[in-house]
Order: sequence, then structure tokens, then C-alpha cells
Amino acid sequence: MERLFKHVCLVARHSKPQVVESLRTLADHLAAAGITVFVDKESATPAEAGPHLLIERSDMGKLADLVIVLGGDGTMLSIARVLAPYRVPLVGINQGRLGFMTDIPRHEMLEAIDAILAGHFVPENRILLQASLIREDAEVANALAFNDIVFSRGAVGSMIEFEVFIDNQFVYSQRSDGLIVSTPTGSTAYSLAAGGPILHPTLQAIALVPICPQSLNNRPIAVNDSCEVEFMLTRGLDARVHFDGQSHCDLMEMDRVLIRRYRNPLRILHPVGYNYYDMLRHKLHWGERLL
Amino acid sequence: MERLFKHVCLVARHSKPQVVESLRTLADHLAAAGITVFVDKESATPAEAGPHLLIERSDMGKLADLVIVLGGDGTMLSIARVLAPYRVPLVGINQGRLGFMTDIPRHEMLEAIDAILAGHFVPENRILLQASLIREDAEVANALAFNDIVFSRGAVGSMIEFEVFIDNQFVYSQRSDGLIVSTPTGSTAYSLAAGGPILHPTLQAIALVPICPQSLNNRPIAVNDSCEVEFMLTRGLDARVHFDGQSHCDLMEMDRVLIRRYRNPLRILHPVGYNYYDMLRHKLHWGERLL
Amino acid sequence: MERLFKHVCLVARHSKPQVVESLRTLADHLAAAGITVFVDKESATPAEAGPHLLIERSDMGKLADLVIVLGGDGTMLSIARVLAPYRVPLVGINQGRLGFMTDIPRHEMLEAIDAILAGHFVPENRILLQASLIREDAEVANALAFNDIVFSRGAVGSMIEFEVFIDNQFVYSQRSDGLIVSTPTGSTAYSLAAGGPILHPTLQAIALVPICPQSLNNRPIAVNDSCEVEFMLTRGLDARVHFDGQSHCDLMEMDRVLIRRYRNPLRILHPVGYNYYDMLRHKLHWGERLL
Amino acid sequence: MERLFKHVCLVARHSKPQVVESLRTLADHLAAAGITVFVDKESATPAEAGPHLLIERSDMGKLADLVIVLGGDGTMLSIARVLAPYRVPLVGINQGRLGFMTDIPRHEMLEAIDAILAGHFVPENRILLQASLIREDAEVANALAFNDIVFSRGAVGSMIEFEVFIDNQFVYSQRSDGLIVSTPTGSTAYSLAAGGPILHPTLQAIALVPICPQSLNNRPIAVNDSCEVEFMLTRGLDARVHFDGQSHCDLMEMDRVLIRRYRNPLRILHPVGYNYYDMLRHKLHWGERLL
Repeated sequence: MERLFKHVCLVARHSKPQVVESLRTLADHLAAAGITVFVDKESATPAEAGPHLLIERSDMGKLADLVIVLGGDGTMLSIARVLAPYRVPLVGINQGRLGFMTDIPRHEMLEAIDAILAGHFVPENRILLQASLIREDAEVANALAFNDIVFSRGAVGSMIEFEVFIDNQFVYSQRSDGLIVSTPTGSTAYSLAAGGPILHPTLQAIALVPICPQSLNNRPIAVNDSCEVEFMLTRGLDARVHFDGQSHCDLMEMDRVLIRRYRNPLRILHPVGYNYYDMLRHKLHWGERLL
Repeated sequence: MERLFKHVCLVARHSKPQVVESLRTLADHLAAAGITVFVDKESATPAEAGPHLLIERSDMGKLADLVIVLGGDGTMLSIARVLAPYRVPLVGINQGRLGFMTDIPRHEMLEAIDAILAGHFVPENRILLQASLIREDAEVANALAFNDIVFSRGAVGSMIEFEVFIDNQFVYSQRSDGLIVSTPTGSTAYSLAAGGPILHPTLQAIALVPICPQSLNNRPIAVNDSCEVEFMLTRGLDARVHFDGQSHCDLMEMDRVLIRRYRNPLRILHPVGYNYYDMLRHKLHWGERLL
Repeated sequence: MERLFKHVCLVARHSKPQVVESLRTLADHLAAAGITVFVDKESATPAEAGPHLLIERSDMGKLADLVIVLGGDGTMLSIARVLAPYRVPLVGINQGRLGFMTDIPRHEMLEAIDAILAGHFVPENRILLQASLIREDAEVANALAFNDIVFSRGAVGSMIEFEVFIDNQFVYSQRSDGLIVSTPTGSTAYSLAAGGPILHPTLQAIALVPICPQSLNNRPIAVNDSCEVEFMLTRGLDARVHFDGQSHCDLMEMDRVLIRRYRNPLRILHPVGYNYYDMLRHKLHWGERLL
Repeated sequence: MERLFKHVCLVARHSKPQVVESLRTLADHLAAAGITVFVDKESATPAEAGPHLLIERSDMGKLADLVIVLGGDGTMLSIARVLAPYRVPLVGINQGRLGFMTDIPRHEMLEAIDAILAGHFVPENRILLQASLIREDAEVANALAFNDIVFSRGAVGSMIEFEVFIDNQFVYSQRSDGLIVSTPTGSTAYSLAAGGPILHPTLQAIALVPICPQSLNNRPIAVNDSCEVEFMLTRGLDARVHFDGQSHCDLMEMDRVLIRRYRNPLRILHPVGYNYYDMLRHKLHWGERLL
């Protein structure tokens, strides 16, 4: 049988000993099966990686044809943004607690990965967003996000004011703590805490969710993910734009941020039997079947 | 120039004298332009219709190639369900207050309709939902909805309990006042009052919005409109299912209701310059441009 | 030592065999300690009550100086309304699942009741509401409520319209599914599901909580419990007013309902160590201490 | 007739010419009536104050027996905190747009103030909160707030974690954007935007309102204003505590903030005919009487 995946890169949330141990177990298991194994340099020391090749995170997309994350949803976010330019799929193994994306439990890791390598998996495409920060008609920064792009007031305790345009059509001006532009993936993260809707991953949609808007009529809206969303800061001394809550840029008044769906989706491979609603129900403590 | 529309049917919210007056003015105007004009029998008396032919509401889809509604969003809902099986487009003229769907003001009626007849319009497709009520494996009723299909407790003051499946996958059991299954069109109606998201009309989505759920984790979810949603009543003595808030069926425990997107969308024609976000901003009192 | 309570009446949620068994165990235990025991006639058959005297529910307040409920919050609601005219305290024993009010677990029942009889308890006063339904200037009905008085649309799927006055001052007109007027006790029940605030029981407050209001600006408001709240139905064909979700009256347009705090509070006795926040945290799954 | 108020201090939101003009008009009017007029030094230049005595803001409470604010709710907040230690009442004159607290329109200013000076007014007491920031068992800062004390994440885009105690009883640990502790006065400000309830000013209550909590069960709770609320930051690198959104302190992990009702309430004088519900209805666009 020809293998689908011959070069696999492993990533772990570093600084957790038992995670590193899992990583080594999995690496040894894959190598024994004849697979070329790479280990992300930020995930393990040379001693921890043992015989397996350490590589730069930025080379992962070029060298591997599958990336396996051992960790939580936060690690998945970081890796998703790194892998997005390449068409390399991602698998998530959680370390005890089911994640929204890391759906293989550690104790089933070896069997589950073997099954995936044998071609038994449920693939799912998830969009990313790309943002371009425009200051005086020039792009001064850009970034990707897998969960959300969040505009927010900074440490000063006052609301910000901004205008939103979709496909160059004016939507609204708003005074609030900020605005979340969320992918379906991000719709179960910060967006949900701010009152946003859950968007099924197959929905070609992004949600615009106001954070504590002064006007109670400013409600979440979901639009087509082919739209271009433009945010313009009209008032706010220390506003910021955050990408997946993991990096950010300071904003100045009159800065504009253009947001589009990124050209490549990210491919996540789930074990056979994966069911989005089962995962949601478990994570959100929804009611089980009664009958 | 060849006309796009040669047979036009007019509908008005009856019992309002000034609406009937507008209807007659418009009918005379169209007839003078050589168009065959029909008037909905429920909208005017023979005296009010004058020389124009009164027809049954159920014949409208067969006889007309354009239907014009003079009234509010409620009248649009009724007509949408009647027209759905036919591919006849709909235009809405409001009687003073901008509606979510009736976007032509009465005082601009004649010019706006002339422009539409001349082919100057912005068409928009909106989905409908069809519901099938299954009792002991047999369909006992079915209906269409343009805004929403609402499951709700009846007059007895206690919550209902039900299970929801999407594409045969179990989603959750829930105890609440009910559940709204809403189209993008309905997302600005009852669904919004219950905390649901606004769904842009081009989004191929339907929203499931719990009404006062006992568990605060039961949040609105938007799914692809190609999904089949199944609702099963597990407990509730006088539960009902409502279609656009205009008709309903009583439900018995263990009844199932299957909901699918209706095969035909409804085509609404807007005047040139129509902009969904302008309409929303006006109706919901969102902030205007500041700069 | 002189006993505080010499005549104790037991009430159980009927039709559950294990509850009736607990009732009999407790009755025998109390009788053995020299206490006169009554058993509510609706809670047990003569065979189940054995040697203990069955009494009418309506006589409970006259004959007993302590009432013990074995059941859930629903049974507490019914008994609270019956006991309200008398100054007889109430104790709640749950049957497995902690209730908002029934805070003694069944397996600790005998020790906990002995401690209470010995004077070791934490008393807590809770208000009730009384409602008077006025039709054409005459009172046509009145009722008490311990949780809430709920005005709601009936089975017809359309919103109701009404006006609210507080101490004869006009507050607002509203179009919605209804309005909840809640005591602090009721603030963790239906009111919470409708978006209302939790009101601590020592707060002399009642909350007015709109149910799915059409205007998103209609938010919950808490006012002093010395206020008189007046509800007037201006539009709604099958509106109803519900008392604790256990009884109701039909409303006609122009009916007015006057709501005041009932003259007597109800006294609930909790075991020593009772803590309202512990109970809330447990029931609502709030975060425990981390450090 | 003996005057109630002989020494009146005027405060204006500076930098607005038309406000300074109103201030001078009012000052001249009062002086002509034999009242000693002071003008806040931050509100006007010596030239603008003309013959009227400029005083330090900090002396206002000692020298005046009535303070009149010309401005908006923001100016009222600043002055409220300054006046709180003294028992000097406050009157608010708005500059065009009705405020939640500044209820006299400028064009009725002279008549309204004359009436108040003649003893015709509706007094209303409003509480303030005092906060004490404790670091390693020592108070390192303290402050007053009239609207709210807000704990919030800073510019870093991640939630904070904290524990809350009320009267030394543990309430919950929470992960969120922050927590608002609001007076009834503040309940219509930021708290409302975050989903908090409106608290009538006569209610002896404060509200604890989570800001975008990760757990959807963390709902607003209103407790007695005689409670001591303790906030302890357990995780958060750049958390802050804000007072009325006008000043703030940085917080370090394990910092505790103790919040109590301030010993003196602030007395606001309203014109005769003032009605809290009328003001709310106007500001929040609630429905007017229909009949």
C-alpha cells in the first residue's frame, strides 16, 4: 500500500513534560513504520527529540506532508497560521481535555494516527482570514488569523469608535469596546463569549460581533466569507487589532484594516466517526439524548 | 422595447382605505401602459378594483409574471408562500414606514415601478423553508415559511422539551420556551428578538435559535441551508409549530418535524440603488457615518 | 430544653415511591422524639402515612409550626403560596439533586432536621408577590406567587402589546412575547432563562424582565419591592398571566393586573453552614477556587 | 424668605464656548439675586469668569452649599467624586441633549434654578463606591466611583482570571474580559452595554456584571449595597481597575481590591416633575403610551 503521508512533523505545546513524552513516543512509533519524522524546534530540545530531526517552524510547511499537533487549541491556532500558505493537513491530539480542534485523546493516539496514515480520516477545510493594516494609503502590516481578528480598546478605560464597510458599502459606525471578525472556527471561541452565533464549519461565512456596544441594537451579523470587511478607527487613543489573541498591532485614528478570506483553507483531518455536533455538545454541556 | 413583465398582479393589505387608493392608482397607471393588470380578490372589492380583473390568490402565480405588494412585511410573507411554487418575482411598496422587504416608498411608487418594468432593478433570491410534520411515521401536515418555523410552548406556562437532529446527526436535547428555525429573511424578525444573529440574504444559511433556554449554554447556531433539520417533541402538552407566525399546527409528544430548504427561492426585485446594509441601519437605528 | 417546633407537617412530591418512603422515615423519627406529626393529604395515602395524621393542605398553616417539604423546588413553590398567610417556616429536603431552595440532601435528613429542631438553623425571609386582576374596574381574580408572575402570549404565535406603570408612573409600552415580574427567589428560575439578573434574596427588589422584546432596548430593570407594578394589556387575543408557572388566568384586552409585595414574607430555615453563593455556584456551574 | 442655598459653585465642561457662555449667564443671574457665586477654576479662565470668584475644584465642597454642573454625565461623574466627602447637593444642566443625570435643558436653566433655589425640587440620594487596592496586605491605592469600578484586561488580547468574594464568602472564579461593579447610577452606563440590569436609584443594590465571560453561565448578579465585594486577580499580566472610566490603577497578580459603599451618598436635586422612568424611556427609546 502506498502511503499518503511520508514526511510527518510533530509539534507539541512545549514546557509540559508529559506532552514531550507523548511526542517522543509518537515520533518513535512513526519512525519504526518507516516514516520520516521531523520535530518542531520550539517543541523539544535535541535531547528530547533523540534521533529525530529538529526543524524550524517556518520549514514545516515545506518539508512535511502532514503535521500532528500534541497540545490544545492554542497550539493549533499558531500552527494553522504557519501552515496556511502550504497545503499541508493538520491533526490534533489533545492532552487530556477534548479541544474544539484537538479531537484525538492521547491514550488513543497511536491507533488513531495509524488509521489516518492508512487513509481513514474525515477531512475538513477551515478558512483563515488575512488582514492588511492601511495607514495613509500604505500597507504597514499584515497578518493571518484562524479564529478571529479582534479590534479592541486598549488599557485606557474608554470605548472606541469606528466605521465598518462590507464590499465598500457602509454598514455602521459604532461605539463599543471593540469588534470581533470571526471565522466559523473562531465562532466557538471569543466570539461566543461576546454573544456571537456558532457558525458551522461548512458555512461559508464570517461573523461580525460587537463587544459591549453602547447601542443595544448593534447585534452580531454573519456575512458571506467572500466579502471584504473594512474597519476604520475614527476615535480611540490606544486601540489595537489582535490576531487569534496571539499577536497584535497598535492602531492610530484613521487607520483602516482590510479583511479577506485567505486564499488557502486549512485542512484538518479528523478520525473516522468524528462529528462536529458531538464535539460541540460535549464542550458546551448541551443536553444528551433522553430517550 | 420588449417588456419583461406583461401581466402584473397587485396585492394590498386590505381594510386600509389609503392602501386601496394606492392600489387603484397603480393599477390604472399600469393598464394605461398596456399591461394586463390583475387584482388579488382578498385585497379589494369589485368596486375598488374598478375595471381591473379580480383573481384568486391561488391563481396569482399562474397568471402573473410579476406581483407587486402594497403593504408591510406581513403581507409580503403571505404572498411569498403563495408564490413560492412559481418563479414569479415580487416587489414591495411600503405605506409610509420602510419595511425590511417593502423598500419602495408609496410617494415614489409610479417612477419606481416604471423603472422596474423597464428592466432597471436589483434582483435578490431568498430561500423558503418547507416543513413536514410526521406523526407515527406518516406525514400529517406540511407548510412553507419565508421567515421562520417556530416551535413553542402553548398557553400552558411550562417549557417544552425536544431533541434536534441535523442531517440525522443528534445535536442536542433542550428544555426551553421553544426553538426558531430561521431563514436569512427571518433573521431580522422574531429570531432577532430571541437573540439570534442577523444572516445576510446571500448567506446559504439557516439559524437555530433557542427561545429562553433553561441552560444558558444553548446558543444560536447557523448551519448550511442544504441541511435537513429535524425537531422531535419529547415533552410538552400543548406545543405548537408556527409558520411565519401566520399559521400553525398543534404538536403531540413524539411528533417529528422535518425542515428543508424549499426547492425554489423567491425572487425579490429592488429598485436600483438598493443596499441591504442601508436598510438594516435605518431599521435598527445603527450609527450613521460620522466623518 | 423547650422545643421551638412541636407540630410539624410533612409534604412530599407525591407519586414517587422513594419520596414517600423518606416521608415515612422522617415522620416516624419525629414522632419518636415526641413531636406531633401531620402529613399532607395530597402527599401520601392513609396506608403510606401509617399512624400519622393526614390533614388538608389548607389546614397546614393553622395546625403546624414547621413544614418540611421532601421534593424539589416545584413543591416548595406550591407550599410557599399555601403557607404565606401564616407565619410558619419551611424546610426543604431534596431527593438527590440539590435544589435552589431544597438544600438538605436526603441522606443527611434526620441529623439536619434534629439540628433545626434544636434551634440550629439559618433563617431567611423571602418575599411573595400578590396579583390582582382588574377588569372594568372590578377585581375578577387574585393570586400569590413566590417565583414570578408572568404575562405571556398564548398559543397564537404573535406578540402581545402592553403598558407598564410603576407606582402610577408610566414606564413603557412594549411589544414582546411577554413580561416576567420576578422575586429574588424567582430570579434564578424562568427570569434567568429570559436574560434577567440574579437578585440576592436579601435585596428588597423585584425584577421586570421582558421576554423576547421586539425592541432590543427593552432591558431588565430591578425596582424596589415596595413598588406597585401595573400591567395593562393593550393588544393580544389570548394573553395569559401565570403564577409560578403553576396556575394562570386568561387576559382580555384592557385588563390590568396590579402587583404588590405580599404582606408576609415566607421564612425558610437552612441548615447551619448554608451559603447562598455556594448553592448558586453549584447549580450554575460557576468556577470553583483555583488557588 | 430665607434662602436654602447662599453659596453656589458653577462647573462647566471646559473648552466648549457656548457652555462657558451659559455659565456666565447663570453666574450673573445668581449674583444679581444676591447669591455668592464661585466658578470652578478648571471650567473657565479669569476673563470668562468676569467678576465671579474662581476657586480650586478641591475647595468646592467646603465653600459652596450647592454645585451646578453645566455639561454632560461625564462632568457629573467627576464632580460627584469630588463632592462626595461633603454633603453638598448637585444640579445638572445639559447642553442640548438630555443626560441620565443632567436633566435641566439649557433653555430652561434660569427658571429651573430659581425654582430650586426657592426650595422647589425633588432630591435624590445616590450611592458611591470606594475601592481599596491591597497588595501584599498593604493598601497601595484607593479611589471613589459614582458609576462603576471596572476590572479589565489591558491591551494584551487575553482574558483575565480572578476570584470574587462577597462579605468574605467565595462567590466564583471567572475567566473573562473583566468585571463591572456598578452602582444604580452606573447601571445605565457601561454595565448596560455589558448585559447588566438597570437598577432603580432607590434600590440599595450594586450589580456585578461579567464582561464577555468564557462560561456562559456567569450572569449578572445584584447584591445589597451594604456588602463588601472583594476582587482578587489570579491571572492577568496587564489587568487594570478603572474608576468611572476616568482614572485607573494597574493590577498585579494576587492584588485584591475591596469595594464598599462610600459613607456619604451624593444628593442630586431634580426639578419638580422629574420622573426617573420618563428619563429612561427617553434615553433608551422605549415605547410611549399608545392609548
